[in-house]
Amino acid sequence: MSSILFKNAGILATVNGGFEFIENGYLGVEGNRIDYIGREEPKKKYGEERDSHNLILAPGFVNCHGHSAMNLLRGVGSDLPLQDWLHVMWPIEDRMNEDDLRCGMELAIMEMLASGTTSFTDMYLMPWAVADTIGRSGIKANFSRVMQAFTEMSDSDYDSYYRVKETEDLYRDYHNAYDERLKVDYAIHAEYTCKELVVRRYSEDCKKKGLCMQIHLSETKKEHVECIEKFGKTPTEWFNDLGCFENPTLAAHCVWVEESDMDILKEKGVTVVHNPTSNLKLGSGYAPIPEMINKGINVALGTDGAASNNNLNFMEEIHLASIIHNGRTGDPTVMDPTTVLKMATINGAKAQGRFDTGSLEVGKKADIVAFDTTAPHLIPNLNPEALLVYSAQGSDVKMTMVDGKILYENGIYKTIDREKVYFEVKKSVERLYGKN
Amino acid sequence: MSSILFKNAGILATVNGGFEFIENGYLGVEGNRIDYIGREEPKKKYGEERDSHNLILAPGFVNCHGHSAMNLLRGVGSDLPLQDWLHVMWPIEDRMNEDDLRCGMELAIMEMLASGTTSFTDMYLMPWAVADTIGRSGIKANFSRVMQAFTEMSDSDYDSYYRVKETEDLYRDYHNAYDERLKVDYAIHAEYTCKELVVRRYSEDCKKKGLCMQIHLSETKKEHVECIEKFGKTPTEWFNDLGCFENPTLAAHCVWVEESDMDILKEKGVTVVHNPTSNLKLGSGYAPIPEMINKGINVALGTDGAASNNNLNFMEEIHLASIIHNGRTGDPTVMDPTTVLKMATINGAKAQGRFDTGSLEVGKKADIVAFDTTAPHLIPNLNPEALLVYSAQGSDVKMTMVDGKILYENGIYKTIDREKVYFEVKKSVERLYGKN
Repeated sequence: MSSILFKNAGILATVNGGFEFIENGYLGVEGNRIDYIGREEPKKKYGEERDSHNLILAPGFVNCHGHSAMNLLRGVGSDLPLQDWLHVMWPIEDRMNEDDLRCGMELAIMEMLASGTTSFTDMYLMPWAVADTIGRSGIKANFSRVMQAFTEMSDSDYDSYYRVKETEDLYRDYHNAYDERLKVDYAIHAEYTCKELVVRRYSEDCKKKGLCMQIHLSETKKEHVECIEKFGKTPTEWFNDLGCFENPTLAAHCVWVEESDMDILKEKGVTVVHNPTSNLKLGSGYAPIPEMINKGINVALGTDGAASNNNLNFMEEIHLASIIHNGRTGDPTVMDPTTVLKMATINGAKAQGRFDTGSLEVGKKADIVAFDTTAPHLIPNLNPEALLVYSAQGSDVKMTMVDGKILYENGIYKTIDREKVYFEVKKSVERLYGKN
Repeated sequence: MSSILFKNAGILATVNGGFEFIENGYLGVEGNRIDYIGREEPKKKYGEERDSHNLILAPGFVNCHGHSAMNLLRGVGSDLPLQDWLHVMWPIEDRMNEDDLRCGMELAIMEMLASGTTSFTDMYLMPWAVADTIGRSGIKANFSRVMQAFTEMSDSDYDSYYRVKETEDLYRDYHNAYDERLKVDYAIHAEYTCKELVVRRYSEDCKKKGLCMQIHLSETKKEHVECIEKFGKTPTEWFNDLGCFENPTLAAHCVWVEESDMDILKEKGVTVVHNPTSNLKLGSGYAPIPEMINKGINVALGTDGAASNNNLNFMEEIHLASIIHNGRTGDPTVMDPTTVLKMATINGAKAQGRFDTGSLEVGKKADIVAFDTTAPHLIPNLNPEALLVYSAQGSDVKMTMVDGKILYENGIYKTIDREKVYFEVKKSVERLYGKN
């Protein structure tokens, strides 16, 4: 087992219970776990010792909502409203094969590692085809075969529905695979793409297996209002009445949730995943995040897919989450750096059912991101929390470690062949769009 | 005179009249000007020829509002509302000496060059002390000695007011210095920090010299409402009635301007400078930018100072300006990439009175930024405008050229000694805050 000591780290942003920022601290990793944190140098000798005085070490980021292979659709349908945009996406996705998915996902993982993400939650197609891609990359992911069912079904239709079978197979083959780095989630695309029987039955199946559920919830005003017109209830009430929230659920977006919806989300322990770039870019609106945090709802952060972002730089989401709500409420104190760092790390880890990561604490898995602090935009350091949340860039990430293994360092990917991925992406783009 | 040809550039984002994006184009620089742009290789031989197939070349960014030496206050007073925040800033600024200003400004210029800014507009203290710092750095700047006058004055008080004299001296010594890279502006801090006589007289002085005027305008609701209470007019009406807008004026923020204010700004040819990060972070609000663009107002972009941002990465402003208004209006088409790129370049150049830059066109000054497009977040390129505005990062800037001279390339500053600046910053921080 390898062991490494980060010596004299400029800042350890622990995100522990007391939310300590330790200056000039020491962090030891033995195998896949953190075995030392403190202000004093440990007596134990580590296999490798690294001077870290120019680094901020933080828990790796947990990107709680995305569609990673959509990296192949980056820039497509730009500047369209969500419902029109979806109708541009779907025909392209229908043309995607396993090779496309694989290289699209590798591209996404490269982007995520390079900006400090150590675990992501994915809702997409044919995940069994790319499970090995995630596994070999070394990153962590909660991934799913997304459920959509546009037509009414009977119970027997449901029993033989191929998407149900695909989720079952995915669970059987990959849940907790690769040292538990892979976790299989259930996922229901949205109220407007699924019929009630399917949501009810799929939610029951999820509960039997004890897995997490992913959904899109009240992303647009149109979705929210039309659901009320159709069913006399909000999307939150609709999902709740169908039993969805009996599962640990990650509800992406929640831009248009009402006060009473928030009470349901809180009561059911639903995690709200805030995707600020996507919500703003698509014109969906501003999710009432400070209001939900005040209710005690667990709020995490996500990038959404590259087609609606248009990148997977988690630091941009951190930056946006930390300032846009100040602007909306007129109150610069509603989102402090501490709250945003929790959303980016420990809140997301909890939402993924990963209770052994999300903070820098002894005994936790060594999922760590190191920021280099030598660039001019990080000088001077008069306020470590503000420096990390407001000033730092994704490009300041110098190293990303998952389960004690360095997967990315100084621009180099240890587990992914960049040139090979680029070559495959070129081929996919030619196939999907007839251009290079 | 040096000459350089960028061969086969991946994308030339010209920002010319037709807003052409030329793929696989050629751009030639002779001395300080662009002398060739086209799809064909020019017959002329250049001193240096560079393969540029992995680059996007764009006009250098014009950062139209900032207080650059405030880099020394980065992270101070974080999460405070503007009026409280100002009262934290002012005592520190009172302690700043010329050495502090010089290294703070050098730090700011390093940040700006590294993220593609080739010209900036600055409103701050003791500019004569740092004019040589700007000059030697090679960057362009419209800079000013900011006017504040909290107490009533007579005409004779004004005539002998030291700040008036300082602006006169600044104009005499530095306007159009360093090959016209330096331009002296007039600057009035804001309605709430200046008395009427001073604004009227200072505006007249500015007009006599034919210079640009910088102001803060309707940044916060408090400022806007209290002005109406005091004077029965909005800050825009107040400045207009005092003759300020008889000068080519850059009005920063304009978050709370009303419909009738916008009509005045349009009629008087005032440039509105949008500072999205600062306005959001301080909780000032959302400036009605699409509405002002629809009125035909010239809108440019700014970072504001590092103390309210907390960096000078212009790509973050581009990114925010391109998405936050979609979110506010619920319309993803209100801010297209073309509009935002114009705000970032040619609109700002015009506002600075620099009509020989701001676009890549033959005969214009060679103020150019080159983005490297090889990182995973810029793959694939299916939409060049979206790639540059939504996906690219400040850190993708590979080279920044001003007047035909490369000032920054691959992390190296050609005119600034980074280690020396860091050493000076350390000393200043110790002096200002008693810590390192």
